[in-house]
Amino acid sequence: MAKDKKKKSLRPKAIPPKGFRDYFGTDVAERNVMLSQITEVYHRYGFDALETPAVETVEALGKFLPDVERPNEGVFAWQDDDDAWMALRYDLTAPLARVYSQFRNDLPSPYRRYAMGPVWRNEKPGPGRYRQFYQCDADTIGAPSIAADAEICSMLSDTLEAVGILRGDYLVKVNNRKVLNGVLEATGVSDDIKKANVLRTIDKFDKVGIEGVKQLLGAGRLDASGAYIDGVGLSEMQIAPVLAFLTSKGFDASSTISNLRSAVGNSDIGLQGISELEMIGELMEAGGYGADRVEIDPSVVRGLAYYTGPVYEAELTFEILNEKGQRRQFGSVSGGGRYDDLVKRFTGQEVPATGVSIGVDRLLAALREKGRMNNLVKGPVIVTVMDRDRLADYQQMVSELRNAGIRAEMYMGNPKNFGNQLKYADKRSSPVAVIEGGDEKANGLVQIKDLALGARLSAKIETTEEWKSQPAQIEIKRDSLISEVRKMIARSEDAM
Amino acid sequence: MAKDKKKKSLRPKAIPPKGFRDYFGTDVAERNVMLSQITEVYHRYGFDALETPAVETVEALGKFLPDVERPNEGVFAWQDDDDAWMALRYDLTAPLARVYSQFRNDLPSPYRRYAMGPVWRNEKPGPGRYRQFYQCDADTIGAPSIAADAEICSMLSDTLEAVGILRGDYLVKVNNRKVLNGVLEATGVSDDIKKANVLRTIDKFDKVGIEGVKQLLGAGRLDASGAYIDGVGLSEMQIAPVLAFLTSKGFDASSTISNLRSAVGNSDIGLQGISELEMIGELMEAGGYGADRVEIDPSVVRGLAYYTGPVYEAELTFEILNEKGQRRQFGSVSGGGRYDDLVKRFTGQEVPATGVSIGVDRLLAALREKGRMNNLVKGPVIVTVMDRDRLADYQQMVSELRNAGIRAEMYMGNPKNFGNQLKYADKRSSPVAVIEGGDEKANGLVQIKDLALGARLSAKIETTEEWKSQPAQIEIKRDSLISEVRKMIARSEDAM
Repeated sequence: MAKDKKKKSLRPKAIPPKGFRDYFGTDVAERNVMLSQITEVYHRYGFDALETPAVETVEALGKFLPDVERPNEGVFAWQDDDDAWMALRYDLTAPLARVYSQFRNDLPSPYRRYAMGPVWRNEKPGPGRYRQFYQCDADTIGAPSIAADAEICSMLSDTLEAVGILRGDYLVKVNNRKVLNGVLEATGVSDDIKKANVLRTIDKFDKVGIEGVKQLLGAGRLDASGAYIDGVGLSEMQIAPVLAFLTSKGFDASSTISNLRSAVGNSDIGLQGISELEMIGELMEAGGYGADRVEIDPSVVRGLAYYTGPVYEAELTFEILNEKGQRRQFGSVSGGGRYDDLVKRFTGQEVPATGVSIGVDRLLAALREKGRMNNLVKGPVIVTVMDRDRLADYQQMVSELRNAGIRAEMYMGNPKNFGNQLKYADKRSSPVAVIEGGDEKANGLVQIKDLALGARLSAKIETTEEWKSQPAQIEIKRDSLISEVRKMIARSEDAM
Repeated sequence: MAKDKKKKSLRPKAIPPKGFRDYFGTDVAERNVMLSQITEVYHRYGFDALETPAVETVEALGKFLPDVERPNEGVFAWQDDDDAWMALRYDLTAPLARVYSQFRNDLPSPYRRYAMGPVWRNEKPGPGRYRQFYQCDADTIGAPSIAADAEICSMLSDTLEAVGILRGDYLVKVNNRKVLNGVLEATGVSDDIKKANVLRTIDKFDKVGIEGVKQLLGAGRLDASGAYIDGVGLSEMQIAPVLAFLTSKGFDASSTISNLRSAVGNSDIGLQGISELEMIGELMEAGGYGADRVEIDPSVVRGLAYYTGPVYEAELTFEILNEKGQRRQFGSVSGGGRYDDLVKRFTGQEVPATGVSIGVDRLLAALREKGRMNNLVKGPVIVTVMDRDRLADYQQMVSELRNAGIRAEMYMGNPKNFGNQLKYADKRSSPVAVIEGGDEKANGLVQIKDLALGARLSAKIETTEEWKSQPAQIEIKRDSLISEVRKMIARSEDAM
């Protein structure tokens, strides 16, 4: 007894590492369907596939996540036999910069590529927060033209519609980092620490509102907990451009543009950013992408420090219930922007680049929420085993069904208890069971059973005799098996 | 200058870790097409998708590769924040055993699952030998019936034909470990070390031939280098069953079976193995899988120690030229077998299992060898930029083409040098270039150019004027752009 216990404790635990999960049947199939729909759009836009390995040198990855300062923070890393550090990729952009640098003499220029696959983050897992998740990216490297950014925004719009998000249920929102820099310039703040504080305060706009931002940029503010938060100490005149920026979104693009213009004043970089935004708007308009699909939104900032120009985000605008039962907008499923410095790390030369990343899991969740992902995987027809000495007969039926393109299998468990065969068929969501006993065999007949209908007619059937008495079951000629099964599947799909 | 050099040396190297590689455009697309063809067959056979994470606990993986004795040998492993060891999966079978153990109460029984994805091996890389590669597996867990093995063999045959291997160009070869154990029993050898030596010698059959095996099992043998290799020391009577086994393959299944019968003598386990082989043959025959697709081949041993019953292998029988220009058979692209002990590690209960793994990269190589993977990825139509102030006009054409389902893009590099635009189109294998200068625009016309035809007509074209003079280029009405481009693409595809 004691020995037995000890043996048990030596057995490995059957669980994945924390923060990792498995995906079964429908989950995998649904994601694959969505990825192939996305691929189709990316391909139509002229983007080529690229698949890099899961593992890169830590050196090539840049040793840290783009928005994390400490080395090795956030990545899974280990040393190779020759002591060189290697790590699992944390996104698809860092490997792209490596590939472009390595093969830039052979690749077309500009290089449009798409990539999809898992990325890994060594972060504390939480509910719905995993350490391995899918990304689906498209980037254009080597195109300085703002047309490349506009193209990605159009593509994002087409992609969302291709996977089943209806027009009106999403918006592609565009902004430009240069406008933000122009606003900073307009404040007249030149001290870098002060600049960073202004940006941090702008990021708090969602939480503290316009009055809160005003106080935080000025003398300071009493927060909800009663603590006094020191302000940045700007004058009212310095604060004005920031407030103008934060409230610049107008009822249409041209009013937003004109508001932004007054926010950036005479700043060259700011005016450049605004003219880029206008250009994006013009190109998208030319392609037929109007205000119902794309808009300028000054609140789009995108966290990553490496963006240098246009930034964009796809937001789903319909509401869902959150964990607390409150209605809220579904929110962002994709984002990206222009990053002109990432390749420079390798080559020393600045290479213009712009690209987008789709959060595959969030987009799938949205489609499920909208009920656009139903019944992708149909259960197989189950050929039951009535007589274990006649497996070859059953095997022949299964082969005929499969050759006709019908998903089918012979029951492979212990055939003794017929009830177990039916329970198995139920668990597999089988549409049809095929039954051939000795009598049927002798007379060239088989029984086929509409299992969905059967389930509705009877909650619990244990014996073959009861089973046969159900009207959902019909007797057919053995040689009409394929056509009769096909009819029954079609009928059962119609009934759903 | 010196400073510059130092700066340069600080730049990261743009290369992947050794033994890892990138896959571009066509490679990725071809593999995806093949994987979806395989998936379709697996699905039709009733198998459900499963995707496990890339990372498992070292405990769950079993700490070592199935055919390697030393811990951590062959896997990429590292310690998590809580010091627990985790590792990249080295195959898709170990994670399946973990999943089945974890979810066995919820999964259907038997559980048929397929999985595809990369696996990682921490081995010394070599030419064509990578440390990350694709596998594509199908397994049935919880089915003791030999019908499950027969089903996998049929499925393997259907899968090869589905991806484009013609009947006659492959054979699914089946053997049974129990027959091998029966042969060992028939020798009368009971000492475990001696048994292992006999098995090792059987594995050398390919190299040393029947006479060599005879000597090595007996007194010993002078090898090619002149060294004397000690023999296992069996008597002639003990050696006889091994020789009978190695030469048992007959001109048809029943003669092979009868030869095997004499090799195993009275061994119960051997006779059981033979009757399992007969059963597989019978079931496959019933499904229509004859000797042109499946055969019993006693030389199939499969390296992994964990196989306990039927083992199978898919061999491509056509010849290719090897690196030295010699003709040789393409060989194995897939293998598997029955392994009844893998789940037991976790649960303590023996669970019957059988499954197959397809070497995706080798199968792709075979299809390329046979020329069955041509032109899967077509280049995009390139809308050239003649006038950089009219990007919106070009963008509009691109959007029209894309909305019509035609792969298309606007040239996004610097448009100044028109020759570069044509070079880009060439690099992208574009079928058609669209050209609209100011004159054309004014007259509602555009030029479209058959690039493949153009390339044949002229090796080097640098200026727009020369370009226009080529007969491969035609002037069309702007509002017939879609239909004319479609016609030109169809013509160019016909010409190939």
